[in-house]
Amino acid sequence: MEFDTIAAISTPMGEGAIAIVRLSGDDAVAIADRVFHAPNRKKLSTQPSHTIHYGHLKEPESGEVVEEVMLSMMKGPKTFTREDVVEINCHGGIVSVNRVLQLVLKNGARLAEPGEFTKRAFLNGRIDLSQAEAVMDLIRAKTDRAMNVALGQMDGKLSRLIGELRQALLETLAQVEVNIDYPEYDDVEEMTIPLMLEKSTWVMKEIEKLLQTSSQGKILREGLSTVILGRPNVGKSSLLNSLVQENKAIVTDVAGTTRDIIEEYVNVRGVPLRLVDTAGIRETEDIVERIGVERSRQVLKEADLILLVVNYGDELTEEDERLFETIQNMDYIVVVNKTDLSQQIDLARVQALAGNRKVVTTSLLKEEGVTELEEAIAALFFEGSLEAGDMTYVSNARHIALLHQAHSTIKDAIEAAHAGVPVDMIQIDVTRTWELLGEIIGDTVQESLINQLFSQFCLGK
Amino acid sequence: MEFDTIAAISTPMGEGAIAIVRLSGDDAVAIADRVFHAPNRKKLSTQPSHTIHYGHLKEPESGEVVEEVMLSMMKGPKTFTREDVVEINCHGGIVSVNRVLQLVLKNGARLAEPGEFTKRAFLNGRIDLSQAEAVMDLIRAKTDRAMNVALGQMDGKLSRLIGELRQALLETLAQVEVNIDYPEYDDVEEMTIPLMLEKSTWVMKEIEKLLQTSSQGKILREGLSTVILGRPNVGKSSLLNSLVQENKAIVTDVAGTTRDIIEEYVNVRGVPLRLVDTAGIRETEDIVERIGVERSRQVLKEADLILLVVNYGDELTEEDERLFETIQNMDYIVVVNKTDLSQQIDLARVQALAGNRKVVTTSLLKEEGVTELEEAIAALFFEGSLEAGDMTYVSNARHIALLHQAHSTIKDAIEAAHAGVPVDMIQIDVTRTWELLGEIIGDTVQESLINQLFSQFCLGK
Repeated sequence: MEFDTIAAISTPMGEGAIAIVRLSGDDAVAIADRVFHAPNRKKLSTQPSHTIHYGHLKEPESGEVVEEVMLSMMKGPKTFTREDVVEINCHGGIVSVNRVLQLVLKNGARLAEPGEFTKRAFLNGRIDLSQAEAVMDLIRAKTDRAMNVALGQMDGKLSRLIGELRQALLETLAQVEVNIDYPEYDDVEEMTIPLMLEKSTWVMKEIEKLLQTSSQGKILREGLSTVILGRPNVGKSSLLNSLVQENKAIVTDVAGTTRDIIEEYVNVRGVPLRLVDTAGIRETEDIVERIGVERSRQVLKEADLILLVVNYGDELTEEDERLFETIQNMDYIVVVNKTDLSQQIDLARVQALAGNRKVVTTSLLKEEGVTELEEAIAALFFEGSLEAGDMTYVSNARHIALLHQAHSTIKDAIEAAHAGVPVDMIQIDVTRTWELLGEIIGDTVQESLINQLFSQFCLGK
Repeated sequence: MEFDTIAAISTPMGEGAIAIVRLSGDDAVAIADRVFHAPNRKKLSTQPSHTIHYGHLKEPESGEVVEEVMLSMMKGPKTFTREDVVEINCHGGIVSVNRVLQLVLKNGARLAEPGEFTKRAFLNGRIDLSQAEAVMDLIRAKTDRAMNVALGQMDGKLSRLIGELRQALLETLAQVEVNIDYPEYDDVEEMTIPLMLEKSTWVMKEIEKLLQTSSQGKILREGLSTVILGRPNVGKSSLLNSLVQENKAIVTDVAGTTRDIIEEYVNVRGVPLRLVDTAGIRETEDIVERIGVERSRQVLKEADLILLVVNYGDELTEEDERLFETIQNMDYIVVVNKTDLSQQIDLARVQALAGNRKVVTTSLLKEEGVTELEEAIAALFFEGSLEAGDMTYVSNARHIALLHQAHSTIKDAIEAAHAGVPVDMIQIDVTRTWELLGEIIGDTVQESLINQLFSQFCLGK
């Protein structure tokens, strides 16, 4: 395929030692040659591929120096996109990197859309769609485990498994074709239904296995949305600080410019917790008061985990009980804090309200009980099963939805076969299953979907 | 010189397409060879310099894949540090890049201190101290002009000028030596004093010229600390939004984790404004109320520019007059906002309070007057003089302090010469001036100072 030449900043925005502006396309080397000046005056186009060159970028008209750079020149197809790629390493300042980008845009490159480099790698056949999606998962990974899942998927682990399932379905479909084309062979019909049942059942079981990993996969990928809840002065901000400090916040998100909800990620024994509205807790000690009733309901509704804090040195209040009631159908852990005070709380009542949820006692002041709390969080979502690191996890919502649909169509096929439906009718469901699985790896997928998928990528990838 | 091998993350932290872990030192290639596996199994040490290689990083013991990478291998001395340098381009996620860093640290590299790569470039003689400092200025540059100043300084513009001044002083000193060694030549003494006066006066004038650029240089480098002040509901947040939107915020700083003061940089006609406590304005519309009286006094005290907003549709209140009084000795511009309302304000009184400060009327609602305000800001600090883009700017506080000292010692020398002080006494002041100028480029500078300077750099540079 042939495309125009795109360019984008490929490193995170901010101040750092180095930033990269990446170009990809047939004119990548020619555009670089227009603005790049090596001390030895050699043109990049005359240089061997996969080499690095020092020099200055200059405005072609005025000759004004724009930046001092190191430039990596890689000719296709042994590149990320399979096209010619030039990476300009410049100083990592905001002005510097934007200047370099503007210069190449003025000299023939087009600003890349988010994900367009990876999209080209996909369209040029270097990777399939699930591998492309894994690239983004890898970048967004918040823990080692999440990164291993993404690395495996990028390496084609999921693609290979999906490929095997589709192959099995294809074999039964081929058998059906033989059956339809040569109906005079009676024994073909007899063989077709048992074969179809056998293969389809295997495919269904494999899809079920994959779907079983999906809830854990999703948590690994997106983090466990966690809200710390409790009356004022029960120790919510102490709990927040203790989680953040013990586990070292791995990233802080500031959503948009309004900054109304700030999130922090902490890595608790391989479980990424996305702590919601940490600024709210730090500032006012009261999430409900701060973000308004309607908004806080929404935050609670979207939470995967709630840490409900109550005071060991105080009797349970009506407000405490109301909080228990509010979250009664959700996943939560009760943190009875301030065991350094003399006990006033009725622990039996707390456990009764909590039902089969875990109740942990802590003294955040004395740094006691945090380990138990972390163990409780890890156990609640993983029960140690993540230790088997070699599984193929499905974590992507699109993949999960497709697997659910494929599961439903293959189940229909199996039931129809049992019910004695003619084989050419069953074939429709099997074919649909094959197509649905194909959408995961991008084999049977529409252009509009592809555009939409890659638009969720970050710029420069 | 010979150093151990250092490593650091050289791209800004955050999610992006690519991140770089950089290694520098004698073992850089050997360490990379321990963990890097190319598909063709070739070792990096056998490859030519300045080449790029695709492959996987693996744990040496377990063989577990850590990342998929592109690796740039550059052998010294044609590198940033003059040492062997390996740059590992990995996926730009937080987990990914930290994993890669940990891997090379486990396999023989030491974590670089902030600025240590640039420090090596200095210690290995590739650049002088003022050029090294320009590297960091370039990264932190907030506008094109600031970047041009840094680029010029990095290119050795300031170094060359300082070198010329020192050369002139050295010539007079040589003359003095001749005078002292051969006192029998009477005409030497006669020639020495006029020559010394001539050269010293030229040096003093040049230092004065440099110092004249320093206040603008400092603003270019650090941004103009700007506070928007005014009663509630006069339109402070509209003004903030209009400045940010019209000029596109170039960077948002979140100071520390407490997030109590948020700053945004906007580029107003080449003048970088550092808008202080923008979150406070957005949230409460009242900086004074929000950050407490003591704190807000401090913020005001440190401001280079205050934008005082008053309401066109309202009479001046006592509070308005108090605000005028608070900032009476500072640089400020009065913004009379809401000209879309019917006039209640006494404009003559406003101008009387403002004295010779500029008063601009705006209707931020109707997007009127912002251009005039921006022109007033630019005029207040630059009066168009920045247009002469070819000047050598001094922007660094350390350089400015040294230039002031050098100016004082050379002035002493000149006055002493006029007063008929013996030439070997004057020589002391001239030598001191030569030394002080040498400290700017790092020629006569102590190790402790060097360590302190580079520690202000960002990591990975």
